[in-house]
Amino acid sequence: MRTEPVVEGSSPQPRRRGRPAKSTALADDTRSTIVTAAAAEFSRDGYDATSMRGIARAAGVDPALVRHYFSDKADLFAEAIAAPMRPDRMVRQALAGPRDQIGVNLVRYMVETLDRPAASERVIRMMHTALGQEFAAKMLRQFIIREVLKRIAKELGEEDSELRASFAATQIVGMVVARYGIKIEPLASASPDEVVNRIGPVVQWHLMGNPLP
Amino acid sequence: MRTEPVVEGSSPQPRRRGRPAKSTALADDTRSTIVTAAAAEFSRDGYDATSMRGIARAAGVDPALVRHYFSDKADLFAEAIAAPMRPDRMVRQALAGPRDQIGVNLVRYMVETLDRPAASERVIRMMHTALGQEFAAKMLRQFIIREVLKRIAKELGEEDSELRASFAATQIVGMVVARYGIKIEPLASASPDEVVNRIGPVVQWHLMGNPLP
Repeated sequence: MRTEPVVEGSSPQPRRRGRPAKSTALADDTRSTIVTAAAAEFSRDGYDATSMRGIARAAGVDPALVRHYFSDKADLFAEAIAAPMRPDRMVRQALAGPRDQIGVNLVRYMVETLDRPAASERVIRMMHTALGQEFAAKMLRQFIIREVLKRIAKELGEEDSELRASFAATQIVGMVVARYGIKIEPLASASPDEVVNRIGPVVQWHLMGNPLP
Repeated sequence: MRTEPVVEGSSPQPRRRGRPAKSTALADDTRSTIVTAAAAEFSRDGYDATSMRGIARAAGVDPALVRHYFSDKADLFAEAIAAPMRPDRMVRQALAGPRDQIGVNLVRYMVETLDRPAASERVIRMMHTALGQEFAAKMLRQFIIREVLKRIAKELGEEDSELRASFAATQIVGMVVARYGIKIEPLASASPDEVVNRIGPVVQWHLMGNPLP
């Protein structure tokens, strides 16, 4: 089972999907073995301490084979937790636009993605698990810090960028939980534009201190 | 078991605690019967549709007795879900200060309360439940809307105050989930002042559009 990227074409490395034509069933088995091993490794050691090489070892396959199916660790992690959205890709794409639009672009991608119930239900389920079990919180935390916040901080390059990025995360996490989880009104029924206009500039202010409208 | 008010002296009506001196055990039984009935009624009907009178009926006691132990519905609800903090009281207290300080005052109360692990663990447990079970989400949603957001909106008196209040809630909910639940760094280890200075003005902007520093 593959989770399609939320934002089309946002991956810097197109996924190599060249499975051997004559052994699709075998390839699916291998792929599935890798994902199962990855889920176990991430759960046990957390996101940071798990490596592609360690996953290959646990799955009993060559590291090159892991890289054949998955471009990087974030990719494999997203698959292991069946992540319905790829915040790391969204961030990469948002960082590619004008710097004073990072907040608005990020929020727009998230709202457009999560306004589909299938996506928001899975994200809320993941949040639910993370708030109930420390190992899940740890994985999610490390993934967010490594793949999302540190990338943003690096792009901003300021001394307090990591702190700023983590505060930006509060506004995004709160938008997700309140709109799609608890469903607080009138927020939950507000139009995507309304949400983008009221949340995007706050994320931008957290990140870079741009004045609000 | 009583949960002490988080913000001392913030209740407009001091709690009447005059239990009959000679029958404390009986009074405790009665009180406990009322709380149990309340929890069942809130779960079944939600916060809005549950009344003090209905709870009295379900508990098989006189409505006056319910009011003897609990000053209002929010009070009984907080007890029924063993709420570790009372956002409704915090809001009432924050609204009593200068209007341009509502955001900062609200966030300061919350951070001071939740920096005690016993309090934050219970709030996160409640969030966890609300994200996993619709009846819990419904209760929490209705409580937040009725006791928190509508009070703020009424005080602000603007046409879009309810919408503004619900957006302010996203920043507060996100601060709680990211700092105390997922524990995203460096946010989770930031000082209370840092959190108040970076979150308070955003809440204020959501509420009233005051410019950010």
